[in-house]
Amino acid sequence: MKGIFLTMEGPDGSGKTTQILKLKEHLMQHGYDEVVVTREPGGTVISEAVRGILLNREYAEMDDHTEALLYAAARAQLVAQVIKPALDAGKAVISDRFVDSSAVYQGMARGLGVEKIYELNGFAMQGIWPDLTIHLDLPAEVGLARAKSRAELDRMEAQSTAFHEKVAQGYRDLAALAPERIVTIDATQDIDAIHAAIVDKVEKLLAAR
Amino acid sequence: MKGIFLTMEGPDGSGKTTQILKLKEHLMQHGYDEVVVTREPGGTVISEAVRGILLNREYAEMDDHTEALLYAAARAQLVAQVIKPALDAGKAVISDRFVDSSAVYQGMARGLGVEKIYELNGFAMQGIWPDLTIHLDLPAEVGLARAKSRAELDRMEAQSTAFHEKVAQGYRDLAALAPERIVTIDATQDIDAIHAAIVDKVEKLLAAR
Repeated sequence: MKGIFLTMEGPDGSGKTTQILKLKEHLMQHGYDEVVVTREPGGTVISEAVRGILLNREYAEMDDHTEALLYAAARAQLVAQVIKPALDAGKAVISDRFVDSSAVYQGMARGLGVEKIYELNGFAMQGIWPDLTIHLDLPAEVGLARAKSRAELDRMEAQSTAFHEKVAQGYRDLAALAPERIVTIDATQDIDAIHAAIVDKVEKLLAAR
Repeated sequence: MKGIFLTMEGPDGSGKTTQILKLKEHLMQHGYDEVVVTREPGGTVISEAVRGILLNREYAEMDDHTEALLYAAARAQLVAQVIKPALDAGKAVISDRFVDSSAVYQGMARGLGVEKIYELNGFAMQGIWPDLTIHLDLPAEVGLARAKSRAELDRMEAQSTAFHEKVAQGYRDLAALAPERIVTIDATQDIDAIHAAIVDKVEKLLAAR
């Protein structure tokens, strides 16, 4: 098998974790012996330490540029230590968030600019772009209500409602800009319907390779 | 007074801390009511947390890109929270290391390229460049011996001798590339002679403004 890199994107509470586990199972039943699942920010010891800084609610004074650079730093380590070696070994990799989270959260919602963010992350990613990005589309308030119900909000989740609305809309705009890579799926559907829609997109990609 | 931004650069053990304290005293006796002294990586709560990751000797697996991005992240926070507000208020700022450390350590000694590092840090620095950079030049082995004698080595100090030699030479090369901003001072001289040479350069800069 050839390595394949899939990323799951969308607002907090859009069901990314659930769908990743179901997609992993599907891939393991359909040809991939090893499916590496990872998350951002995190996925390595160093990246999890950076995550600890990024999501710490005491750091309300964090500058937007610092935030963007810390996400890129955590990503660089994850790419170098986990994603690139796994792809080189022909494995499937599914990441819960990746570069498009930075494009939307820091580029759009923080206003730093999508181009700037992709440029910055080009340095972090060493040419590793997702083969397919699944965007779980959900109204901001629905996702937030789910996120609030399950745990205390972290520094990013605790941003304003206006911020989260910019994120939800930002994902739609980003998907429209890169339709060949980012597919949008209605995440208000039930879990199995969403899974079926994801499998359809992934199987088309695999068939085309 | 107009704000002025001075940075002190050079290998570990080149005497930066000592010279910064003496320069601060000089500036306070010659017109600056407030001289802000800071250090990199660090100088803010968030930047010090990033420093904790960068210098942790357990993180031997850190990728060079991660390292460069973490230094830039710590710098972004320091610029936004400390350096820019101080300069805007007309204060003098002296930083123990700044962007040229990244140019030399990550750009040259790690081989990521000086251009790439300056580009990356352009994002972090928001247009804030040093008015004058003082490069304390010292053979790598002399600095290392001093650093070893005073404390346990951190992750960067614990790099190979070849790495530290690249750093010492890298500073010389960088200073040659930007002679209008970076002045090189022989740091094998005694403390007072080095101080006098620094004061001479700083006074010339102040007189020209």
